[in-house]
Amino acid sequence: MNRTKFTLLVFSLSFIIILSPLLLFAEDGSQLWLRYQSAIHYKAKVTSKEKSPAITIAIRELENSWQGQPIEFNLDKKQKHLKDGYQIKGNNDKITITAQKDVGLLYSAYHLLRLQLTETDRTNLNLEEIPAYDVRILNHWDNLNRTIERGYAGYSLWKWDELPNTLSPRYDAYARANASIGINATVLNNVNATPEILTGAYLAKVKALADVFRPYGVKVYLAVNFSSPKELGGLSDSDPLNPEVSKWWSSKVKEIYSLIPDFGGFLVKANSEGLPGPQDYGRTHADGANMLADALKPYGGIVMWRAFVYNPSNEDRAKQAYSEFTPLDGQFRDNVIIQIKNGPVDFQPREPFSPLFGALRDTQEMVEFQITQEYLGFSNHLVYLSPMFKETLDSDTYSDGEGSTIAKITDGTLRPNKVTAISAVANIGEDTNWCGHHFAQANWYAFGRLAWNHQLTSEQIADEWIKMTFSDNKDFVNPVKDMMLSSRETAVDYMMPLGLHHIFAFGHHYGPEPWGDVPGARPDWMPWYYHNADSTGLGFDRTTSGSNAVSQYFPPLNNIYNDIALCPENLLLWFHHVPWDYRMKDGKTLWDELCYKYDSGVQQVRAYQKLWDRMEPFVDEQRFREVQSKLRIQARDAVWWKDACLLYFQTFSKRPVPYDIERPVHELEDLKKIKLDMKHHN
Amino acid sequence: MNRTKFTLLVFSLSFIIILSPLLLFAEDGSQLWLRYQSAIHYKAKVTSKEKSPAITIAIRELENSWQGQPIEFNLDKKQKHLKDGYQIKGNNDKITITAQKDVGLLYSAYHLLRLQLTETDRTNLNLEEIPAYDVRILNHWDNLNRTIERGYAGYSLWKWDELPNTLSPRYDAYARANASIGINATVLNNVNATPEILTGAYLAKVKALADVFRPYGVKVYLAVNFSSPKELGGLSDSDPLNPEVSKWWSSKVKEIYSLIPDFGGFLVKANSEGLPGPQDYGRTHADGANMLADALKPYGGIVMWRAFVYNPSNEDRAKQAYSEFTPLDGQFRDNVIIQIKNGPVDFQPREPFSPLFGALRDTQEMVEFQITQEYLGFSNHLVYLSPMFKETLDSDTYSDGEGSTIAKITDGTLRPNKVTAISAVANIGEDTNWCGHHFAQANWYAFGRLAWNHQLTSEQIADEWIKMTFSDNKDFVNPVKDMMLSSRETAVDYMMPLGLHHIFAFGHHYGPEPWGDVPGARPDWMPWYYHNADSTGLGFDRTTSGSNAVSQYFPPLNNIYNDIALCPENLLLWFHHVPWDYRMKDGKTLWDELCYKYDSGVQQVRAYQKLWDRMEPFVDEQRFREVQSKLRIQARDAVWWKDACLLYFQTFSKRPVPYDIERPVHELEDLKKIKLDMKHHN
Repeated sequence: MNRTKFTLLVFSLSFIIILSPLLLFAEDGSQLWLRYQSAIHYKAKVTSKEKSPAITIAIRELENSWQGQPIEFNLDKKQKHLKDGYQIKGNNDKITITAQKDVGLLYSAYHLLRLQLTETDRTNLNLEEIPAYDVRILNHWDNLNRTIERGYAGYSLWKWDELPNTLSPRYDAYARANASIGINATVLNNVNATPEILTGAYLAKVKALADVFRPYGVKVYLAVNFSSPKELGGLSDSDPLNPEVSKWWSSKVKEIYSLIPDFGGFLVKANSEGLPGPQDYGRTHADGANMLADALKPYGGIVMWRAFVYNPSNEDRAKQAYSEFTPLDGQFRDNVIIQIKNGPVDFQPREPFSPLFGALRDTQEMVEFQITQEYLGFSNHLVYLSPMFKETLDSDTYSDGEGSTIAKITDGTLRPNKVTAISAVANIGEDTNWCGHHFAQANWYAFGRLAWNHQLTSEQIADEWIKMTFSDNKDFVNPVKDMMLSSRETAVDYMMPLGLHHIFAFGHHYGPEPWGDVPGARPDWMPWYYHNADSTGLGFDRTTSGSNAVSQYFPPLNNIYNDIALCPENLLLWFHHVPWDYRMKDGKTLWDELCYKYDSGVQQVRAYQKLWDRMEPFVDEQRFREVQSKLRIQARDAVWWKDACLLYFQTFSKRPVPYDIERPVHELEDLKKIKLDMKHHN
Repeated sequence: MNRTKFTLLVFSLSFIIILSPLLLFAEDGSQLWLRYQSAIHYKAKVTSKEKSPAITIAIRELENSWQGQPIEFNLDKKQKHLKDGYQIKGNNDKITITAQKDVGLLYSAYHLLRLQLTETDRTNLNLEEIPAYDVRILNHWDNLNRTIERGYAGYSLWKWDELPNTLSPRYDAYARANASIGINATVLNNVNATPEILTGAYLAKVKALADVFRPYGVKVYLAVNFSSPKELGGLSDSDPLNPEVSKWWSSKVKEIYSLIPDFGGFLVKANSEGLPGPQDYGRTHADGANMLADALKPYGGIVMWRAFVYNPSNEDRAKQAYSEFTPLDGQFRDNVIIQIKNGPVDFQPREPFSPLFGALRDTQEMVEFQITQEYLGFSNHLVYLSPMFKETLDSDTYSDGEGSTIAKITDGTLRPNKVTAISAVANIGEDTNWCGHHFAQANWYAFGRLAWNHQLTSEQIADEWIKMTFSDNKDFVNPVKDMMLSSRETAVDYMMPLGLHHIFAFGHHYGPEPWGDVPGARPDWMPWYYHNADSTGLGFDRTTSGSNAVSQYFPPLNNIYNDIALCPENLLLWFHHVPWDYRMKDGKTLWDELCYKYDSGVQQVRAYQKLWDRMEPFVDEQRFREVQSKLRIQARDAVWWKDACLLYFQTFSKRPVPYDIERPVHELEDLKKIKLDMKHHN
C-alpha cells in the first residue's frame, strides 16, 4: 500500500467515525422526540442502591446519553405524595433524584435528558414533579385484523398473528416513548370491541405485550364487548343482573390477572352506535359498569365507561349523553370512571365542552380526547392539538362556582375521586414515523405532557417538542412554534369556523360535504342536521327556543350561550341559527364573516408553506420534504374546504363572496362529485 | 270571463309585448357582437338605386336596427381606390354612403350599427374606410368527419352529411358575422387536407356553402392535398412537372369554377409534418405552387403556400422555413402568396417574428395567425389576442431599413404586391356561443378588425367589442378592457415567460410538460429540445455560438438578439442559454425572475376572477356564470403551470423559489402523472 492510498484510507475511516453519531439513526421520524446523541467518549455515572427493570432502563438511558454530573437514584417509598413523580436536586457536581416508585426514577431520567436536549440550564436543579392524573392512558382503536379505526399512520403496531412468540422491537420503542412523556397506560384494542380479545389465545398475546411494557411503567387495559358472556361464554344472555353473567366476568378477570398481575381494567363502549350494552336487558349503564367494576375490584382494576351514547331520536344529539347519564349520578362504584369526550358531539374542530363535566357530582369523570385527526385532516394536515386540549381542560363549567374547570373536576382538586384519569385516542400506527405526519408526533407528545401537568402551556410544550424533535436554533424554534400554536385555529377557519360542525363527508370525515344527504341514513349523521342552512340563516338553534341544549350548562353559561349577543362568536353557530345579515362584533354580516374566516384559513396555510420552506437549512432533507409535501396537500385541501362551504352556503345566503377575497376556483357541482376512496380506518 | 281574469290576461299580454325585444334572443353568446335591438316603432329609411343581394342585406340590417337619419346608398364603380371600402358622409338629417362594390355598402351598414351600439356620435359623419388587405381570410382546420384539428368549440359548423340539400341557418349567421367585421374569405377545410374534398360530391357541398356566403362578400377557398392527382385522379404520381398532373389540376380547377365562379383559390400545406408535396419528386415548393397557380390564373384564383415546413434534421427547427424558402425567392408566380406563421416555430404564447418576413424580396408574403388557442389554454383561458397580433404586425424587420414592419411588408406599402392577404386559423365551432369561451369571440372580432385596419389599437378594438357584446357602461367597459389588454401577457407569465417555448404536453398542447420525453418521438417535438434546462442554465442558444438563428434577422436585429445584454428579456430564453444566476435588468437572478413571472401570472388570473365577479350586475346571468366558471379553470391551470414549471426547472437550478412567493401546492411527481384525455381536435 503506498502512502497516498493509506492516507485516503485513514481519511475515509476518520470521516466515518466522525459522522457515526449522526449515522446512528436516519432522520425519518422514527426516533420521535428521543433524538439523544450517544456520548462517545463519556459515560455518565449513575448510581442506585435499589434495582428494578425500570431503574435499569433509567440508568441505561442516562449512561448512553447524559453528558453531565454524576446522578444518584434514591427510592423512598415513604414519599407517598410524589405518586409516580420525583424530586430532582443538584448542583454542578452531583444530582440526587428521589422517587417513591421505580418508574418515578425512570421518568426523572427522561426529564433530565429533556433538559439536556432543550439546552436548559442543569447546574442548579431543585424541582418536584407530581403527575396531575393517576391514569394517563392512550386508547388504541386498533382492530384485531390490524386495521385501525380512524388510523392514518398505517396498520396497527400490534402484530397479533406473530404474538406472543415474536416481539417486534417497536413494542419496546412504543413503551419507551410513552414513558418518556409520562404515559402509563394503554388500551390495546378498539372500543368497538369484539369478544375475541378475551379468548385465551388473545390474552396470551396481551400478556406478551404487557410484559414488554411493564418495565416502562405502562399498564395494559382492554376494551371489552358487553356481549362477551353470551358470544364467548355461551351464556343465554349478557344481562348484568344475571348471576351467571357476573360470574363469567369474575372468572374472566381472574384469568386475566393470573396472566397480567398489574392489568389495568376495562374500557367499555355500550349501547352506542349499535354496540350491545345493559340497556339491551332493560338495565342501566350503572348496572353494567358496576357489574364489571365488582369483578375488577379485588385486583385494583377499574372500569372506564364511555358516555359517548346517542340514538336516532328526536332529541338533539348534543344533549343525549347528559340526558342519559345525569339520572344515574351517584349510582356508580368507586372504581368506575365515566369517560366523556371533550365535546358533546364528536371530536369536532371546535365544540363547546360537554355539559356532563361537573354535572355528575357523585360520579368520577375523565376526559377522552382524540389525538388521531379524524376530523382534522387525518395525517395530512399540520394541526397542533395542545391548544384544543387546553381549551377543554381550562373551560370553566361553573359546576362548583367560578373556577370549576374541567381540569380541576377531573384531576381530583374539586372532587374526592378515588382514581383520576385522562385518556386520548392514539394516532400511532406502523408507519416509520409513527403518526403519518411528523408534526402529528407533537400531539402524542402534548397529550402525555398535559396528562402529567395540565398547567403547562401549549407554547412550553411546543417549545420542548420542537427542540427535541428538530433543532434548538431559535431561528427555527420561534417561527415553527408560531405556526404550531396558530394551526388549530387555522384548521377551524378553513373547515368549520364560528361554531359550524360535522359538515364532513360521510364515512371518511376527511373532506367537506355540507350538502351531504345519504338516503335512509340517520339524520344525526347528516351535515344538514348540524348546519341547518336555509334562506334565513345558518346554525343549530340550541337556545331555549330551540333544542334547549343550553339548559344543560350551569349558570351563567346557560344564559351566555343562550344569548346571541353574549355567546362567544367561535361557538355562535353551535348554539344559534343566525340570520345571514346578523352583525358580528367587527361590524361584518355573518355571511361576510364566514367568508373571511374561510379565506383566512387558506391564507394561513399558505403562510405556513412559506414559513416551512424557509426552514430548509435547519431540517434534514427527508423530514423537510415530507412536511413540505403534507403542507402542499393541506393548502389544496384548505381551498377545497373554502370553495365547497362558501359555494354551498351561498346557495342559501344568495350573497356575493366579498370582492376582496380570493375567488373560488372550483365549481360546486364538481366538488359534489368528489368521492374519495377512503375508509374509516387506515 | 270575469273582469279579474280579463285584467290578468291583458296584464300578461302587455308583459310579453314589453319584454319581447329582450326575448328575441337568449344571452347565450349566439349573437356574438351583433346584439342589435330591433327598433319596434321605427323603421329606418334606406334608399338605393342599385340592387344586389348584398345591398338587400344591408338595407334589411339597417331597417331592422338603425335608429337614426335616412340613409342613401350610392354605388360608384369609378371609385376604385375604395377597393371594398366605403365613404360615409352625413349630418343630422341624412347620411350618404358611397362604395365601388355592393359589399362596401354592406360593410358600411355594419359600420353604422357599430357606431350606434357603441354610442358613438352619429350626427356629423365624414369618413372613408379602405381595407388594409385584399384577402382577409379565416382558415378552418375542419376535417370532413366534422372534427376540428385544434378546435375547442364543438364540432365543425359544416354539416357535410346534410349538404348540399340542407342548409343550416348558422351558415348564414357565420357569413353575416364575418361581413360585419370585414372578413371576406374562408378556407373551409383543414390544411392537413384529404383529396376527398375535391371529389364532385364534396364540390357540390362546397358550392352550396359558397352560395350562402356570396351575398355577404365571403369567398370560399379550399385546402388541397398535393397528392390529389394520384390519390383521386388515378395518375401514377403527383409530380408538378408531370404534364398529366398539371392537366389534372387545370381540369379540376375548371370544374370548381363552373360551380363557384368566384372561387378564391387554394391553401397548401406541402412537405410538412408528413404531408405530400413537390419535394417527393425532387421538385421545389416553387414548382409545386406555380403549377397550381397556373391552373388558377385564368379564373383569378390564388395559391396560399404555407411556409410552415420543418424536418427532423439537425438544423434548429426555428431556422428551417427560412432555409428552405429564401433560395426560392423570385421563383413564385404573382398569384402565389407564401403564408408564414407569425413566429418561426408554432404559435407559441410568445415568439419573435418569423425571419422570413421581409427576407423574400421578390415573393409575396402573408401572415398566418392562430385565433384558436392551441397553445393558450384552449377555450378555457381568457386571452385577448389582439396585442399578440399587433406585436407581430408592428414588428420592425428592418428588411428595407427602419420602419419595415410586417404590416407594411404584407399590406403592399413596401412591396408591389399583386394581391395582399392576411389569414388566421379560426376558433369557430358548433357551440352555441361559437368559440367556446365568450371572450374568445373577441379574438375572431379582433382578427377581422385588424385585417381591415391594422392601425387600430388593441384597446380600440376591445372597447368596441365589449360595448357591442356586453354593455357600454363604463364601470364595466373599463375594468374588463384592462383585463383583456393584460391577458395575453398574463398567459405568457404563467405558461412560458422570458422567451420559453413549446414546453406543452405532447399531443394536446394544453397543460405543462417540460419534462416530456416520448420514446422514439422526434426531438423537435420534445420540450427538452426547446428549454435545454441543465445545471448551468435555461434556454435555447440561437446565438452565433449556438444554432445561429439570429443570423436570419436583418441588422441590427441579428446583433441585438445575439447579445444577451441587448436581447429583449421577453425573448431571452428563445435566443440564449442563460445561467441561472444571470442578473436581469431588475437585478434579480434569472431563476428568481422566472419564479416571479410564474407567480405574477397566477396572481393576475386571480385578480381577473375578482374583477369579473364584481361585474355581475352588468352581465346577464348565463354569460356571467360561464365566464366565471372558465376563469376558475384558468386560475387552477395557472397554478398547475407555475408548480409544474418551477418544480421541474428547480431540479436543475437547485435554487429555492423566492420565499415571498406563494409556494407550490403540487408534487412534481404527481404532476408528471397527469395524462389528460384530450385529442388534438374537439
